[in-house]
Amino acid sequence: MRILFAATAATLALATTTLAQEPEAPAPSPGEIVNAAPQDEWVVIDPEDLVVMTLPPLADGSERKVVMQLIGEPFSQGWVENIRTLARSEYWDGSEILRVQDNYVVQWGRPDPEMGVEPKPVPEGLNVMPESEYVANRTREQARALRDSSALFHARAGDRFNEFCEGDGELKPGWNIRKCSGFNLSLADVHGMISVGFEQGWPIGATINWDQVWPVHCYGMVGVGRGMSPDTGDGSQLYTVIGHAPRHLDRNIAVVGRIVDGIEHLSSLPRGKGALGFYEDPAKRVPIVSVRMAAELPASEMPRFEYLSTESDSFAAYADARANRRDPFFIQPAGGADICNIPVPVRRAGERQ
Amino acid sequence: MRILFAATAATLALATTTLAQEPEAPAPSPGEIVNAAPQDEWVVIDPEDLVVMTLPPLADGSERKVVMQLIGEPFSQGWVENIRTLARSEYWDGSEILRVQDNYVVQWGRPDPEMGVEPKPVPEGLNVMPESEYVANRTREQARALRDSSALFHARAGDRFNEFCEGDGELKPGWNIRKCSGFNLSLADVHGMISVGFEQGWPIGATINWDQVWPVHCYGMVGVGRGMSPDTGDGSQLYTVIGHAPRHLDRNIAVVGRIVDGIEHLSSLPRGKGALGFYEDPAKRVPIVSVRMAAELPASEMPRFEYLSTESDSFAAYADARANRRDPFFIQPAGGADICNIPVPVRRAGERQ
Repeated sequence: MRILFAATAATLALATTTLAQEPEAPAPSPGEIVNAAPQDEWVVIDPEDLVVMTLPPLADGSERKVVMQLIGEPFSQGWVENIRTLARSEYWDGSEILRVQDNYVVQWGRPDPEMGVEPKPVPEGLNVMPESEYVANRTREQARALRDSSALFHARAGDRFNEFCEGDGELKPGWNIRKCSGFNLSLADVHGMISVGFEQGWPIGATINWDQVWPVHCYGMVGVGRGMSPDTGDGSQLYTVIGHAPRHLDRNIAVVGRIVDGIEHLSSLPRGKGALGFYEDPAKRVPIVSVRMAAELPASEMPRFEYLSTESDSFAAYADARANRRDPFFIQPAGGADICNIPVPVRRAGERQ
Repeated sequence: MRILFAATAATLALATTTLAQEPEAPAPSPGEIVNAAPQDEWVVIDPEDLVVMTLPPLADGSERKVVMQLIGEPFSQGWVENIRTLARSEYWDGSEILRVQDNYVVQWGRPDPEMGVEPKPVPEGLNVMPESEYVANRTREQARALRDSSALFHARAGDRFNEFCEGDGELKPGWNIRKCSGFNLSLADVHGMISVGFEQGWPIGATINWDQVWPVHCYGMVGVGRGMSPDTGDGSQLYTVIGHAPRHLDRNIAVVGRIVDGIEHLSSLPRGKGALGFYEDPAKRVPIVSVRMAAELPASEMPRFEYLSTESDSFAAYADARANRRDPFFIQPAGGADICNIPVPVRRAGERQ
């Protein structure tokens, strides 16, 4: 079978072992590294951080559920709280997918008044968030602790090797990764004077001195639709990225989470033909049956997910393998990877993929 | 209407002009810059470089045509020639979309023999290409000319400002762009020791000294499916990128073109449930009605497209605006953009968008 990339390193390994004594095992693929990660490197996601959106079943009867993980402290918590309030008030039941723009975003919620539909009032008491909350500020001490912690992969365009790792760093030729006391993966970023890394399971950007940090717009990340500044949105309209990472939205919109399951039910929707991919014909909008906090669902329906700790050794090996594919299909390792080409592995809890 | 980003700088401008005398006009959006580009900055694409793939109409009767532009010299010409041969022999008529993997690729062609279908022989005389052709080699003189030409946006991680532009460069604070004799946009790349830029309308990667160049895997780029090395594929199975740029494929697969129209007919297809997104159930595969060279179509059906010259002043302004959104929706310019977040504008010939 002609394939695009490494189907079965296992098959290859088998073939190799029949050929020679003690052959060198082929390098594992990123997926194989993730699969081999011990269970204690996986972090279960709190059901209070999971939101389940149900779309009507497809014509063949198959169900469509989309599961979103809400981001934790110190990011966007005012909007995250609003989203929990909106879900608990069943605000989104009967709302719609409003917009699907190719290589950009899917957006959902209730149509704006301009769209000719009587608006459904949002629940009382939603937080009104300032633009300053698009980023999280850190004290000098916090920034230093963050910078020095193995919880972060440090990166800075143009200063990739020597910022934070000294002495005990192992430099891997051709790729900007070093092992430090814990480990740090030095990821260059294309954005001037910006650092990128992973923290507590999320891809984040930061100022060079780490006094401001923010979540970045990778594929599947979820943000808050808004009007013109200083409006920041209340969380009642959300979007997710279904194309190349639109990093220009970082620090311009609140990022509140990511889709951890079922994004294909959004990314495969027909594109809207109106400006910005909005559906001009309301009949084209996909209705949303319900949006619920996972914690409120009966135990039998409650989804359980876990992510590979971005502070784990397996994640470091996975990120390195994403940056330097050495598994048999590849002949030329890239020598690097941008942060959005290292998606954080998420799976159903306890499930090997 | 709550929108994700700048809907109408024009409206804004209007509002502003009613408020004050000689107000500062809001900065144009990237799309507005493209729209304002003079016609002589647009390059018409040769119909010999356009391939039209027709899928069956949708249930509502709307047609589905996907138009691919083949890449020119010095890239991948052996495979490109094969694709023209395959299209002229009508090899793909009755073939199928075989694979749709979310955030990755759509792949089409004829099922491999392992899929249980009698293979249709490819036309005789297809080129068998070596892996060395994944990149184009340049002599020292060519490399220097390329490096010095305004046809390229030079970039190199960690050396973003000072490599190629001297003396007359205008450094824009906060972003790695300079105007040189012509202009150069210095784009940092995350991949160690790799340069990126644009040439003749294509996003390309290069070694630091520009002696090797290659097309990069951005959204919508088309590549050649292959088996394990040293197979390089004959071009009879192709794929296009429908997610975040999988740059790890660069230099590992032949890139032969890009989708310039109708990619939504591929990117919105249901995802395959088998390994790598292959459709396990052959009934799920979308049939391909025909694939034709545009030059062979009757004049009335021949698509005409043009791209914004990547050597033009408007493209430089567009790239700068993509990297630093200053239009009214944005409050914090990114300070940079990766090469795949600066898609080369393509439109129907003579059409303003």
